[in-house]
Amino acid sequence: MTKYSTYTPGLDGVVATETELSYLDVDAEEIVIRGYELIELANSKEYIDLVQLLLRGSLPDEQERNSLEEEMKKEYTLPDSFFSLFKKLPEDTHPMDALRTGISALAGYDKDIDKRQEDTINNIAVKLLAKISNIVANSYHILHKESAIEPKKELSYSANFLYMITGKEPTTREVAYFDQSLMMYSEHEMPNSTFTARVIASTNADIYGALTGAVASLKGNLHGGANEAVMQMLVEGKTSEGFRLLLYDKLNRKEKIMGFGHRVYMKKMDPRAALMKESLRELSVDKNREDLFEMCEVGESVMKEEKGLYPNLDYYAAPVYYLLGIPIDLYTPIFFAARTLGLCAHVAEQYNTNKLFRPRVLYTGPRNLHP
Amino acid sequence: MTKYSTYTPGLDGVVATETELSYLDVDAEEIVIRGYELIELANSKEYIDLVQLLLRGSLPDEQERNSLEEEMKKEYTLPDSFFSLFKKLPEDTHPMDALRTGISALAGYDKDIDKRQEDTINNIAVKLLAKISNIVANSYHILHKESAIEPKKELSYSANFLYMITGKEPTTREVAYFDQSLMMYSEHEMPNSTFTARVIASTNADIYGALTGAVASLKGNLHGGANEAVMQMLVEGKTSEGFRLLLYDKLNRKEKIMGFGHRVYMKKMDPRAALMKESLRELSVDKNREDLFEMCEVGESVMKEEKGLYPNLDYYAAPVYYLLGIPIDLYTPIFFAARTLGLCAHVAEQYNTNKLFRPRVLYTGPRNLHP
Ligand SMILES: CC(C)(COP(=O)(O)OP(=O)(O)OC[C@H]1O[C@@H](n2cnc3c(N)ncnc32)[C@H](O)[C@@H]1OP(=O)(O)O)[C@@H](O)C(=O)NCCC(=O)NCCS
Ligand SMILES: CC(C)(COP(=O)(O)OP(=O)(O)OC[C@H]1O[C@@H](n2cnc3c(N)ncnc32)[C@H](O)[C@@H]1OP(=O)(O)O)[C@@H](O)C(=O)NCCC(=O)NCCS
Repeated sequence: MTKYSTYTPGLDGVVATETELSYLDVDAEEIVIRGYELIELANSKEYIDLVQLLLRGSLPDEQERNSLEEEMKKEYTLPDSFFSLFKKLPEDTHPMDALRTGISALAGYDKDIDKRQEDTINNIAVKLLAKISNIVANSYHILHKESAIEPKKELSYSANFLYMITGKEPTTREVAYFDQSLMMYSEHEMPNSTFTARVIASTNADIYGALTGAVASLKGNLHGGANEAVMQMLVEGKTSEGFRLLLYDKLNRKEKIMGFGHRVYMKKMDPRAALMKESLRELSVDKNREDLFEMCEVGESVMKEEKGLYPNLDYYAAPVYYLLGIPIDLYTPIFFAARTLGLCAHVAEQYNTNKLFRPRVLYTGPRNLHP
Repeated sequence: MTKYSTYTPGLDGVVATETELSYLDVDAEEIVIRGYELIELANSKEYIDLVQLLLRGSLPDEQERNSLEEEMKKEYTLPDSFFSLFKKLPEDTHPMDALRTGISALAGYDKDIDKRQEDTINNIAVKLLAKISNIVANSYHILHKESAIEPKKELSYSANFLYMITGKEPTTREVAYFDQSLMMYSEHEMPNSTFTARVIASTNADIYGALTGAVASLKGNLHGGANEAVMQMLVEGKTSEGFRLLLYDKLNRKEKIMGFGHRVYMKKMDPRAALMKESLRELSVDKNREDLFEMCEVGESVMKEEKGLYPNLDYYAAPVYYLLGIPIDLYTPIFFAARTLGLCAHVAEQYNTNKLFRPRVLYTGPRNLHP
């Protein structure tokens, strides 16, 4: 029998790939994105700057930034028959399932689908980032039998995204919080969905397939689905006291508490969560919902005391989205929309340096049976 | 910076999971499926027996086998509006993309989608295996503006599958070759698509998502897409001499030749390919196409001489499907349909023993840049 050195479940700590894109330096408490630190970027840059950085290799100057944003705005439009597909889906379809179906179907419209060159992939990525905001926002409206909201090109990318979701033009402050959340979600080394996308791309399959697989992965509540699960708990808890009781009840039943823990940061606070917490603190004042911020702090301290666990990004992104008036069902699709950026950059890198992912197993079943 | 022991691109030789389902014992030249050897199974059993073995843990007796087949036949039907979805896809949609979209959309119809218990997953699997034959065969017809072919319950599972594809009731011999190919494709340890499905399932995402990701992976020509690529070369080559020239031409241009090589068997013949080769030898006599068999042998010897590489299953499955009258576009979807069995068994096992897949990276980009 072939000998294998060690086996760590879930590939915990195993290096699966080289990358120039990002790295979680836990010791230095840095989220490195092409050499920059994500939290530092978030303090002076916007999502659109990260698009240029991740897809084109460097931060844009003002002109590059404007022309990139123009490029994206031209690409909001979806193929004519595209939304009619969503009308064919059964009513109870989960928005992440609708998104997965939509991204998969979009493949059929792209004439460049068989190309694998970095430039082409990056162009597809820019188009997809524009379209994904439209798909996420409007697939929701269509599944809820509302009419689709046309994008407004006079708004910035992030402002328009939020506008298409809520149907109301957001304030500058609302846009800033939303944009910051998109930055936080944009790229994060090798989480399950990014890994999924690279594994799929490594068969030389197309980028739509890689992204479709990533949507599938992100739906799970151990990954992107956590933000929706967090908000459901907060809504159910109602008050700080209610939330505390709810958490203790779950802990007594040995349930996992969504929004806490992280493979890489397990015993530290996710730096993105710390930033989102500050956003929530401010936003809860704007919206007169300091009680929601307090609830979150209560939950944070319960989990620290009882489990030694810290909040992850999803824990604080959820209430921020809530206060921005975003329907809970859309939290994970928005996470996906933002992460489409990092995913596309990883898929392009995978094609460039490809080696098929094909691991082995430790077989624990019987041997030598005969029919 | 965190230290990592070794990094092998593509997780070559890395154990990613434990499994009781299957194991490629290259030294013993055995493909172990729950303790049985696949080639031995293929000589006395049928695909339906493997369904019971993989999903329910043991080979069926005659009664169990019949009742399983009846169960499956009851599940051929698809939701009313399901095929109308395919009519919404753009005309050029690749059948694997249509299949991916279809499996994804099917999620919305399943009331059990949030359950993760082994029994429920195995029941979903049985239903899916029935429906997938209908989806594969008829999505093709619909994309080609032909009318769908209703399943015939009086035929065996495999006979009906082939019938829905070609529109003609197949002979007993044709069914036997087709059934054997389904067995060969049913399960094969940890290829990229199975790995994809387990990685996705590990976020606690649903089985439809896991399977959708697997379709995406299987489309790539380094994986399932190879069988179609092989047939295109054979058609283009036309004669043994033409095929030989075509191969040398590709080799001179340093192109990879589809249908050769395999991560695990690289310098040995895939035992499944050896079995399919014998099927092709017989079938080519039945169909008066011994020339096709000869072409394949010529290709085999060119690759052995020039590269020391051996054929994989896809190399011999492709011409077998060709002689069975199956449209080339359907070879990879059929591979997926057969593999749905192994995929579902792996997803059930993943839920049962779950640990999130979340590896790390070797960061090769810059550090300490500031915006
Ligand atoms: C993210 C996560 C999957 C990473 O976990 P991992 O590296 O696979 O480690 P495990 O899930 O095996 O957790 C290790 C231990 O911590 C516990 N733990 C981890 N996260 C926990 C949580 N959120 N609530 C309660 N216990 C938790 C586990 O129960 C386990 O305890 P055990 O060793 O006694 O069995 C895990 O922290 C989790 O499930 N969190 C909740 C979901 C979530 O918020 N996901 C979004 C991540 S960005
Ligand atoms: C299946 C496959 C991806 C496994 O390969 P792998 O373990 O990732 O190894 P690599 O692709 O890096 O191949 C190793 C070497 O063999 C060569 N090689 C492998 N398969 C080859 C093929 N089919 N034709 C020509 N050369 C091949 C590679 O070019 C490489 O040579 P190098 O070291 O000089 O660069 C590979 O054999 C392949 O691409 N085959 C063709 C596609 C196919 O039939 N897939 C179906 C598999 S069931």
